[in-house]
Amino acid sequence: MHILHTIREARDLITHARTEGKSIGLVPTMGYFHEGHLSLMRQARRDNDLVVVSLFVNPIQFGPGEDFREYPRDLDRDARMAEEVGVDLVFNPSVEEMYPEGYNTYAAVEKLAEGLCGAFRPGHFRGVTTVVLKLFNIVQPDRAYFGRKDYQQLKVIERMAKDLNVPVEVIGMPTVREPDGLAMSSRNMYLDPEERRAALVLSKSLKYAQDLLNEGVSSAKELKKRVETFIRQEPLARIDYVEIVNPDTLERLETIEDKALIALAVKIGVTRLIDNAILTR
Amino acid sequence: MHILHTIREARDLITHARTEGKSIGLVPTMGYFHEGHLSLMRQARRDNDLVVVSLFVNPIQFGPGEDFREYPRDLDRDARMAEEVGVDLVFNPSVEEMYPEGYNTYAAVEKLAEGLCGAFRPGHFRGVTTVVLKLFNIVQPDRAYFGRKDYQQLKVIERMAKDLNVPVEVIGMPTVREPDGLAMSSRNMYLDPEERRAALVLSKSLKYAQDLLNEGVSSAKELKKRVETFIRQEPLARIDYVEIVNPDTLERLETIEDKALIALAVKIGVTRLIDNAILTR
Repeated sequence: MHILHTIREARDLITHARTEGKSIGLVPTMGYFHEGHLSLMRQARRDNDLVVVSLFVNPIQFGPGEDFREYPRDLDRDARMAEEVGVDLVFNPSVEEMYPEGYNTYAAVEKLAEGLCGAFRPGHFRGVTTVVLKLFNIVQPDRAYFGRKDYQQLKVIERMAKDLNVPVEVIGMPTVREPDGLAMSSRNMYLDPEERRAALVLSKSLKYAQDLLNEGVSSAKELKKRVETFIRQEPLARIDYVEIVNPDTLERLETIEDKALIALAVKIGVTRLIDNAILTR
Repeated sequence: MHILHTIREARDLITHARTEGKSIGLVPTMGYFHEGHLSLMRQARRDNDLVVVSLFVNPIQFGPGEDFREYPRDLDRDARMAEEVGVDLVFNPSVEEMYPEGYNTYAAVEKLAEGLCGAFRPGHFRGVTTVVLKLFNIVQPDRAYFGRKDYQQLKVIERMAKDLNVPVEVIGMPTVREPDGLAMSSRNMYLDPEERRAALVLSKSLKYAQDLLNEGVSSAKELKKRVETFIRQEPLARIDYVEIVNPDTLERLETIEDKALIALAVKIGVTRLIDNAILTR
């Protein structure tokens, strides 16, 4: 497995593979891998001849006061894990390599990026779409893999790639969970044991929402209210949002007709966690 | 020569050429060709195996009250001219093909796009960079050609391609002028005979600026003032701006040390014309 730090080196290796007719899969990550990341890499391994994993903690998707500096980093551990699942290239550029002096261009999806996490993290999705577009242009993958835990991110990236005619297939993969239901996230490492227990309220509240729908509660307002009440029973939890939206447009629903996305962001202590589920009637 | 209207058809033809190892040159245009456009096509013909000219009047780069509807269009004439200079493919998509329902993504260069025309045409360069990025992704050219008459546009596109790691060489070509000095522009067709004569004030004022610099006037403020006075002697002319800037950063200069860009936008009647020149000491 190769670990390369410059765009030029990565391009040379990838261009060579493409010349040989190899298909290319990209898994963009911020590192500190868990089973969620590995599931993306395994799928990329099944689908493609060359598997590229980018590992870059992207400063422009963090707001002021967010955890850019504290975000966990461990290249050696990540490289071992990537090699074990058969990754061919880990692309690990520096901030200066990605955003050299004078850098001044941003790609943004407007409407889809406004609600949910976009409302709480201004500029976040602009940072995400910009870095992902750069990675698409550097790697020129046939397929790129993203987890559905970051559901809005997936939708925003799909939109960006489609709108800008990027010739890549964007593939969303299921959220991977701990045995007790907690969605895997690199940020789970911030949780102390008591917070780790409290964090279960996210996945439990999603299950509770489906139970309520099964019982006939199809008003989004009512469902949202009862899920919020459920989450507030956990003293360590503070709600950023609970929203029930159309899974494609991310627009708020009044009534759940067929299916809906329930998405939530909850702070457990100082750690902001997100989770989501498709509710089906 | 092929004339294709859908992205899919254009991609099929271009992908086939690329598979054969052909190099690809792109000339993005809004049509209504003049010698300026043709000079770009001829250079593309010299440099590449396959020459693609896009012909698309891009609505998102026009502001409210600008001339999107009136902008001259003549596909038959353009196709004949392109064929004569050896273009292989004219790509002429509809607005719906480029911006289908739900379209929502924009690529923007921030600082370089703020001054000069950017200050007078809010959103203009965002529209330009977005459509050019789409064309880059559709055509995936090795080289793309732009005229230096739209100097700020060229700089903004260079910045966008570099920042977003688009693997294309952006090539700027000299402004082509009428025998009397008027920079060629599709918008010159709006001018009536009296305005056509008055429009000469743009190129003459650039020459006047260089004469002043030769005489030792190196203060940008003084030079700008005298050029503005010169232009105001033409009763049909109304100045949008006269600016003297660093040719790379487009930042305003106080003194011309070595070289500078003088850029101007002047309305002749209702027709807004631009021109520029590099001033050298």
